[in-house]
Amino acid sequence: MTENGAHSGPALPEIRRDPVTGAWSILAVGRSRRPGAVPGKATVEPLCPFCPGNESLTPPEIWAEGREGGPPDSPGWKIRVVPNLYPALMPEAGTRGWRRGTRVGRPAYGDHEVIINSPGHDRSLGDMGQEEAVGLMHAYLRRYRHFASQPRLKQVQIIINHKKEAGASLDHPHTQVFVLPVVTRAVADELREARRHDGKGCPLCAAVLEASEDGRVVLENEAWTAFVPYASCAPFEVRFVPRRHNPDFATSDENDIGGMADVLTRTLKALSTQLNNPPYNLWIHSAPCDGKDHAYYHWHVEMVPRIIVSAGFELATGMYINILSPEEAARQLREAVITRALPAKM
Amino acid sequence: MTENGAHSGPALPEIRRDPVTGAWSILAVGRSRRPGAVPGKATVEPLCPFCPGNESLTPPEIWAEGREGGPPDSPGWKIRVVPNLYPALMPEAGTRGWRRGTRVGRPAYGDHEVIINSPGHDRSLGDMGQEEAVGLMHAYLRRYRHFASQPRLKQVQIIINHKKEAGASLDHPHTQVFVLPVVTRAVADELREARRHDGKGCPLCAAVLEASEDGRVVLENEAWTAFVPYASCAPFEVRFVPRRHNPDFATSDENDIGGMADVLTRTLKALSTQLNNPPYNLWIHSAPCDGKDHAYYHWHVEMVPRIIVSAGFELATGMYINILSPEEAARQLREAVITRALPAKM
Repeated sequence: MTENGAHSGPALPEIRRDPVTGAWSILAVGRSRRPGAVPGKATVEPLCPFCPGNESLTPPEIWAEGREGGPPDSPGWKIRVVPNLYPALMPEAGTRGWRRGTRVGRPAYGDHEVIINSPGHDRSLGDMGQEEAVGLMHAYLRRYRHFASQPRLKQVQIIINHKKEAGASLDHPHTQVFVLPVVTRAVADELREARRHDGKGCPLCAAVLEASEDGRVVLENEAWTAFVPYASCAPFEVRFVPRRHNPDFATSDENDIGGMADVLTRTLKALSTQLNNPPYNLWIHSAPCDGKDHAYYHWHVEMVPRIIVSAGFELATGMYINILSPEEAARQLREAVITRALPAKM
Repeated sequence: MTENGAHSGPALPEIRRDPVTGAWSILAVGRSRRPGAVPGKATVEPLCPFCPGNESLTPPEIWAEGREGGPPDSPGWKIRVVPNLYPALMPEAGTRGWRRGTRVGRPAYGDHEVIINSPGHDRSLGDMGQEEAVGLMHAYLRRYRHFASQPRLKQVQIIINHKKEAGASLDHPHTQVFVLPVVTRAVADELREARRHDGKGCPLCAAVLEASEDGRVVLENEAWTAFVPYASCAPFEVRFVPRRHNPDFATSDENDIGGMADVLTRTLKALSTQLNNPPYNLWIHSAPCDGKDHAYYHWHVEMVPRIIVSAGFELATGMYINILSPEEAARQLREAVITRALPAKM
């Protein structure tokens, strides 16, 4: 930010490729205006823009669930979807890439939405009951399908940042939908691993069985398993896997969605009990929506609590140091899980 | 940690491979005993183990510089090298790997040392003058060469975590040396990019020239250039590159070391001035010491300030969102750089 408050740099977001590491970064100077984006310059936010009654503080809503009558952008909703006020990707960004020596880039063409999880300012996914969580998962599925079917968009990335320490800029629990014109490095890595493993079957299907052998399962229902991975990158990392091998979140049925809501809410409750409501990041990984065949990929959800600071070793090596054994993490989470009967309609 | 304080999990550190992502993690349950390793359980540290007079609080020293007479582990040193009390890699770990289904791992064979940068409890690399910093760089070189020449060790990773927010568990400025039996993902990525680019020359050599064209140079001397990368992953990221194309830190000469001390100290001073002594991670990237030919690789140093929390998007995609243009970051750092004449003996 320049001293007069103007933001130098490209007006529209760009995706740039580092010629040394091969990593891509989005340069989105507009996001520096977000509340709390610049440390030590915390903005006073007198009103939560995500609470009912404050709808005028967000851009006009894209979609809302649960409002019975009443105009858009009025209270009464249960879930509300709005454009991100500080988008990292935009449909206006254009699509034409460039290459000047090692300076390789392309416009950050895509989209960036916010799903306000519920009207409750302190109500996170882990606080929800089954029916409410199923509603939220359906909202995810709806937005996912909307973008996945469009041309030129290759990955729809749904994430939750829970609490400031995990990167949330607003306290009111919400979900972000990043829609990208590229297959990101993390998903490309998973595609490569799954393809490499293909002759031996799906590595995630195998890992679910092995987690059971090793005592690393946190909980399961008839459709999903939640387990602590053998090579966890951080204490209490949990991987959530639909038992049915399926590459694509978009093709989920009621059984998948019901099981997903159940494993997520019960695991997050256990995590909150065990670690006193820690910050975490949660995301959905699905095969790219690029029209190619990714039958070997297995879509899933990941959750990493942010209780350890990643440091120079992690940045320098791309490896992680974990100080809690996955078996012990699973044992502690299992003890904190509230057992509940699954709804009959699962 | 179990309730009785025992640490379940393997007694010796292991490197485990995730079958879904392909990432490696070190499982080192002994490191959970580090001060501050478990959040909310901050240990009171009445005495700094890295301050002169407290030498008995570290394991016996491996090497020290500057002590004129006097026994090991006594005061009077200028730089002191000790084993890490909570090692992530150990020579005792063994070398034999395993594979049980998708559970792939190997012992965390290697070493893990701490270089205490100076006797000064508040004296970081950026506070040092040229001569003192040259001494520290020579200590890095000495430990690097020691390990790089040994069999079965493939990467010597030197890092600084500056301040707790960047992962430092002790305030007294220090450097860590991780010695690994594998080429890590980050260095493998850089090797692949450099090899891919090989017909067009070294991407880092090209990036230095382009940084100059774009106004992204922070400072330079006759041997080194410090610049903000085109695709910076975070605000004020700086890449430090020796002008002489050379794959291997171990082969550095006096000219390289003098230039390195100069660009690092002056850039870190500028960063501290501009951002009020922010936390940062800094690391050396050199070609693997695996006996192979990596002539196309260009060794260098990276520094990333930890002023932005990486969030779910970064974890889910392996991409970054940067909110400050590299050109603007370079301009701000340049303004804060103290110009000083290089010593005549450079």
